[in-house]
Amino acid sequence: MGSGSAETIEVPELCRYLDDFADIEKEIVNRYEGFIFDMDGVLWEGTEVIAGAREALVRLRAMGKRVFFCTNNSIFNKKQYVEMFQRRGFDDIAEESIYCAASATANYLQKIGFKGKAYVIGADAMKEEIRAKGVDVFDNSAHTGQFPLPYDMARVELDESIRAVVMGFDHEVNYYKISYAGMLLNTDPSRLFLVTNKDRHFPANGRRLPGAGTFVSALEIVADRPPYIVGKPGPFIIEDICSRFSMPRESLCMVGDNLFTDIEFGRTANIATLMVETGVNSKQQAESPENASRAPDFIVPSIASFLPGGDLSRGG
Amino acid sequence: MGSGSAETIEVPELCRYLDDFADIEKEIVNRYEGFIFDMDGVLWEGTEVIAGAREALVRLRAMGKRVFFCTNNSIFNKKQYVEMFQRRGFDDIAEESIYCAASATANYLQKIGFKGKAYVIGADAMKEEIRAKGVDVFDNSAHTGQFPLPYDMARVELDESIRAVVMGFDHEVNYYKISYAGMLLNTDPSRLFLVTNKDRHFPANGRRLPGAGTFVSALEIVADRPPYIVGKPGPFIIEDICSRFSMPRESLCMVGDNLFTDIEFGRTANIATLMVETGVNSKQQAESPENASRAPDFIVPSIASFLPGGDLSRGG
Repeated sequence: MGSGSAETIEVPELCRYLDDFADIEKEIVNRYEGFIFDMDGVLWEGTEVIAGAREALVRLRAMGKRVFFCTNNSIFNKKQYVEMFQRRGFDDIAEESIYCAASATANYLQKIGFKGKAYVIGADAMKEEIRAKGVDVFDNSAHTGQFPLPYDMARVELDESIRAVVMGFDHEVNYYKISYAGMLLNTDPSRLFLVTNKDRHFPANGRRLPGAGTFVSALEIVADRPPYIVGKPGPFIIEDICSRFSMPRESLCMVGDNLFTDIEFGRTANIATLMVETGVNSKQQAESPENASRAPDFIVPSIASFLPGGDLSRGG
Repeated sequence: MGSGSAETIEVPELCRYLDDFADIEKEIVNRYEGFIFDMDGVLWEGTEVIAGAREALVRLRAMGKRVFFCTNNSIFNKKQYVEMFQRRGFDDIAEESIYCAASATANYLQKIGFKGKAYVIGADAMKEEIRAKGVDVFDNSAHTGQFPLPYDMARVELDESIRAVVMGFDHEVNYYKISYAGMLLNTDPSRLFLVTNKDRHFPANGRRLPGAGTFVSALEIVADRPPYIVGKPGPFIIEDICSRFSMPRESLCMVGDNLFTDIEFGRTANIATLMVETGVNSKQQAESPENASRAPDFIVPSIASFLPGGDLSRGG
C-alpha cells in the first residue's frame, strides 16, 4: 500500500486442499514437529477405526514426530483413554500424550496453584483426576438423589469453604447440583468458575444428545457470569503442550474434523490447523465464506493422506 | 411535521412517576377497566402480604374493575393459587381470574386445537392441567430416576407419536428428560416446542435459584431451535384475557415489579404498564436510559397507592 510498485499482491488462500501425497509430505508432514489429533471423527468413529489411522500414527512417530491427542470428552480419564486406544489396536500411546478434558482441568487447577475445596459437577473420573492433584473435592454424591423445590433449596446451607465450581459432563446433573453451584457462584464473585468445555451436542449413534455445554449454559445463567473454558477451543491445552514438551507454536499442527471446536482451537492458539473430511464438517463448509473466520490452513481427505498410497480398507 | 405551526411538540415522558392519590385516581384507576397483577413483589413478598394489597383489590372490585393475576410460576395450578390467596387473607379470588403458567400452557394447547401426545417436563400440577384439557400426556415419571450415559441414551427408543414437548419448571429435571425431549425436537422439526417462560432466576429467601428458563435454555441448545413462550412476556395471556373477557387492549393495565418480565409483557402486548417499587426493580432502573425500551408508562410507590391515605402497616 502506497509503495507504488507493480508487484502482484499475494492473497493468502483460506484453506489449501491437498490430496497428493508429495504435497502433503512437503507442506505438512515435513513442516511440523508435533501433531495434535482430535479423536472422534479423525482416528475413529465410535468404535470403528478410520482406515489408515493406526498406520499413520506409527509412521509419524517413526519419523520422530510427536503426537498428542485431545478430546473435550470429560467422562473418561487418561488411563481409560489409553485402554480405549489399546482396544482399537493403537499400541504404545502414552498417558502423557493424551489431553482429555478431565485431566486437563485437573492440570489447570494444579498450574494455577489452586488449594481450596472444589464443588465438581462431573464424572467420577474427573473428580479422581482433580483429587489426584491434591485438591479437596466436596463430596456431592448425595446431591444426585435429592429433588427439593426451590423454596427448600433456598434454605440449604452452602459450604462456604468451597473456592471453585468445576463442571464437565455429568449424566447425573440435576436441579440440586445446578442450584448449589449457581448459588456458590452468584453469592461470591471471587469463587473460581471452571468448565471443561461448552460443546452443545454429544453425537452418539447418529443422534444429537446434550453435550457438557448444554448444562454449562444452564449454570452460567444461574451464576450470572461466564466460566473459564479449559478444553477446546480455549488456549490452555496448547499452551500446556508448548511448555511441558518445549515445543514452539510454529512446530505444531492441530488435526481435527470440527471447524467450531478443533479448528477454532488451533486458530485461537495461533498454530497451524488441518481439517480431515472424515468427521462432522465438510470441505464445502470449511470453504464457505460464512466460516472464513474459522477456516483451516489445510484440508486433506483423511488421516490416511499421511501415508504413501492411501486406499486402505476401513475398520479393524 | 411539515405543518409549519408553532405548537410545542409534546415529547412523551418515558415513565410518569405518580405518588399523589388524586393523580393516580385520574390517570390510572379511572382510566382503565382491567388490571393484571403480577403477584410476588406486587401483592406479597414470599408469605408476607404487601401493605394495602388486600384493601386495594377490594376497592378496585367495588369500583367495578376487573382484576386478573398472572404468574410465570408453573409449579402450582389455579386451584392451588386460589388457596394461596385465601391463606394470605385475599377472599373471593376466582379461579378464572388467575393466569398461572401451568394453566395458561394448557389453555394454549386447547386454543390451538392440539390433539396429539405431549412430553411434559414440569410439575405434576402442569401435567394435570394439560390432561384436563384432553391432551394425552406421556408418562415420564420413570425418567426421573434414570441416569444413563449418552451412549446408552442414544439407544433409547423415542415414542414417535409424541407431537409436542412442553416445558415448565421441573425440580426433577435431569439428563434423561433433557436428552429425550431434545431428541424429539431435533429429529422432527414439526413437533411443537412450548415453554411456560424463560425466567432466568427463581428468587427465594434472598437467593437466586435456577428459574424455568435455566433449563429451557439447556433444552433449546439440544433442540437447536427456539420455543414458543406461553407465559410472560409472550403475548398469549393478554390476548386470552382480551378475547375471553371481551376487554379491548386500551382498557387494560399491567401492574408489575419486574421490567424484564411484567413491563416487557405489557409493552409487547401493547397495553398500559405500571411498575410498583415494592419488588425487584427500582424507579432508578426504570428511568435509566439503558432500559428505555422497557420503561413502564407509570411508576407508583406500591399497590397501596390505589387507596386514599396509604400509610398502611405492612403484613398481617
